Amino acid sequence: MIQLTQQFEFSAAHRLHCDTLSDEENKALFGKCNNPSGHGHNYVVEVTLGREIVDAKQVENTNGLIEFEKIVKAQVIDRLDHKHLNEDIEYFSNVNPSVENISVAIWNWLEEPISKLAATDCQLVSVKVFETPKTSALYAGPNASPSV
Amino acid sequence: MIQLTQQFEFSAAHRLHCDTLSDEENKALFGKCNNPSGHGHNYVVEVTLGREIVDAKQVENTNGLIEFEKIVKAQVIDRLDHKHLNEDIEYFSNVNPSVENISVAIWNWLEEPISKLAATDCQLVSVKVFETPKTSALYAGPNASPSV
Amino acid sequence: MIQLTQQFEFSAAHRLHCDTLSDEENKALFGKCNNPSGHGHNYVVEVTLGREIVDAKQVENTNGLIEFEKIVKAQVIDRLDHKHLNEDIEYFSNVNPSVENISVAIWNWLEEPISKLAATDCQLVSVKVFETPKTSALYAGPNASPSV
Amino acid sequence: MIQLTQQFEFSAAHRLHCDTLSDEENKALFGKCNNPSGHGHNYVVEVTLGREIVDAKQVENTNGLIEFEKIVKAQVIDRLDHKHLNEDIEYFSNVNPSVENISVAIWNWLEEPISKLAATDCQLVSVKVFETPKTSALYAGPNASPSV
Amino acid sequence: MIQLTQQFEFSAAHRLHCDTLSDEENKALFGKCNNPSGHGHNYVVEVTLGREIVDAKQVENTNGLIEFEKIVKAQVIDRLDHKHLNEDIEYFSNVNPSVENISVAIWNWLEEPISKLAATDCQLVSVKVFETPKTSALYAGPNASPSV
Amino acid sequence: MIQLTQQFEFSAAHRLHCDTLSDEENKALFGKCNNPSGHGHNYVVEVTLGREIVDAKQVENTNGLIEFEKIVKAQVIDRLDHKHLNEDIEYFSNVNPSVENISVAIWNWLEEPISKLAATDCQLVSVKVFETPKTSALYAGPNASPSV
Repeated sequence: MIQLTQQFEFSAAHRLHCDTLSDEENKALFGKCNNPSGHGHNYVVEVTLGREIVDAKQVENTNGLIEFEKIVKAQVIDRLDHKHLNEDIEYFSNVNPSVENISVAIWNWLEEPISKLAATDCQLVSVKVFETPKTSALYAGPNASPSV
Repeated sequence: MIQLTQQFEFSAAHRLHCDTLSDEENKALFGKCNNPSGHGHNYVVEVTLGREIVDAKQVENTNGLIEFEKIVKAQVIDRLDHKHLNEDIEYFSNVNPSVENISVAIWNWLEEPISKLAATDCQLVSVKVFETPKTSALYAGPNASPSV
Repeated sequence: MIQLTQQFEFSAAHRLHCDTLSDEENKALFGKCNNPSGHGHNYVVEVTLGREIVDAKQVENTNGLIEFEKIVKAQVIDRLDHKHLNEDIEYFSNVNPSVENISVAIWNWLEEPISKLAATDCQLVSVKVFETPKTSALYAGPNASPSV
Repeated sequence: MIQLTQQFEFSAAHRLHCDTLSDEENKALFGKCNNPSGHGHNYVVEVTLGREIVDAKQVENTNGLIEFEKIVKAQVIDRLDHKHLNEDIEYFSNVNPSVENISVAIWNWLEEPISKLAATDCQLVSVKVFETPKTSALYAGPNASPSV
Repeated sequence: MIQLTQQFEFSAAHRLHCDTLSDEENKALFGKCNNPSGHGHNYVVEVTLGREIVDAKQVENTNGLIEFEKIVKAQVIDRLDHKHLNEDIEYFSNVNPSVENISVAIWNWLEEPISKLAATDCQLVSVKVFETPKTSALYAGPNASPSV
Repeated sequence: MIQLTQQFEFSAAHRLHCDTLSDEENKALFGKCNNPSGHGHNYVVEVTLGREIVDAKQVENTNGLIEFEKIVKAQVIDRLDHKHLNEDIEYFSNVNPSVENISVAIWNWLEEPISKLAATDCQLVSVKVFETPKTSALYAGPNASPSV
């Protein structure tokens, strides 16, 4: 198996806030990230695909990047770019838009369309989301085992 | 003269919008950056100081960085970090928070306190603000001549 | 005056070679960069515009980035991206495509269209081209004075 | 086990093209990457070695980096740097030089010499190749299981 | 399981040197890294935590980053930042402060306090230490299986 | 005039300390940077050369980078790399090795040999030294005027 990783970017506002907590608890838990009108980030998304190599020397002829990039653009970037995640994105109406939950959301949006790529041997391996260059979350699906 | 540059960071939401334009004009001019609930960025600020060198071999003994960093933290980072610029910062209540105007604002907030640094030969040379790693504005004060 | 810098990218092949030198001289002068079939780079281009600020607090309402980006895309990126500079670009048919000469070429392609931007107070300040993250050239036009 | 990763760089031209496809199919599949005279990149290669730790506090005394770097330089960088992959490298005479196939080639060139390193407990864990800062492929050998 | 990675930095001096080798052997093995008075680096540390996701849409409400960062600051950064590793840190009095051994040390310092985090489902997944942007070591504990 | 910038790297230990101050004053002024056995950094040095363009389309045929790089390697990198600046470098025996004074030192070491480059129209424009990715000093010689 060989893995191909492509990086994407979007800029969005968000506010860390849990509806199941009181305002005081939210403030204590998330500090300045709980600012009512929100703050924002330049998010970076790294999507990794895996597929089999044909022989000892090469993978199949097509790298499939063009179609793959269209899927990520339609499912992720066009949806989230230049938006306020809490106010503009239905998925986050009752899910706290932490960097961890954003990576789970992107996995959920990508898994099915990628599994249907014409290059049918492709599978989604992982989604890594950077909130800042220093903070990131990686999700590899519900069946992934702990791994470095 | 020798220049010392220090980089700082803050994360904020903003919306490009001019009160003197109609909603349609704002939408046409700023596109997705005019999204009503805003979007956001990881802003990077590079502040450059200048001072004289004492002789051919060295500048004065103190690099003054500690006090200088306190000023930038108090005047800029604590003010803007994890805020929505349009909604939380009075300066931008009637100034469009573009990367250019943010750099002018930061210059205005820093010039006087830096001129009063104990290391009295220090002067503010320029403020450079990155909205993303690809887009930045640089302001060197009202008296700066065009320069590369 | 305030400066706005936008970064662009293109990937291209090139070969350092001067028609006025012999093959041996070219080989001695440019070493491995003279490889006959060429090599290549991910070029990064930073274009800096300058304009006046209106008052002590802000520049004009429009940041003009959308139109400006269209000009750079049409004049520079569409022309050079995924090309072999020596073989595909007429400008470099008799000009050695060094990083210095590429920055001069881009200046020449951009100066007139940028001077005609609707935001008529805009001027081209400089073009910086990175051949690698470690090697770059900066050109600020025929009238620029030496400056840091 | 502990992993050690070292980054290397080379600049090369390449053209995406499959001999088993027609010119029209190649053009449709690879778009501008199929430009006949090629384009180029600054490639970054990350090679990861693994070895056992001796006790709970440390690995063996030698980090072995010096000999390891010589192998990568001789087998990979000297071979590919400042070359046109399709025209100058025999391996790619009938293998499409995609970022995926380049990572497989580098694995094949490195696996045996690294297994013979004096520090005999060393093994090659993975080869990651960046075509641009945003596009990379990772290959961990024919026996690797899917993993993040 | 979802993984959260946070990046930290410290600046330190070190000298590669093994007490069990002669001065000549140390010089031969480590070259300029064996310089008697030492040299130094800006170290970057990436600590990765793992925890379970609650349902198909999200992880638990708290991201736990604030308490986690306090642990790393107390156990790692305050201990190593602006120090000479060989001379100031007891752990390295008889352990060669290579990038590999530093990553093992940090794992050992972090594992227990992280396992006691209030968010009790947290576990330490890996510690990655960069000596320079090009050289890094990754340690995932004594029970980790080889993995990419 | 066109400017060419090349980036170099060295790793070194240093200690901020002024002989003209008491131990207490040094401790108060430089804080943890005054740690007696020192700490260290991965220093990055950007050296900028300037020269005239021959006509509207290009600079002279040679880019001169090969000879220029040899000068910087001999005068700067071989001298400072993997050294303890205070203890191993005579220049800093009575000069505090701050990032500002390092940039002045490098300028002094480079100015004369660069002025003697065969490509006689070359001049040293500036030396920029990064102590970390966030802190840098720029020196453009004793005759430079303040500039951004």
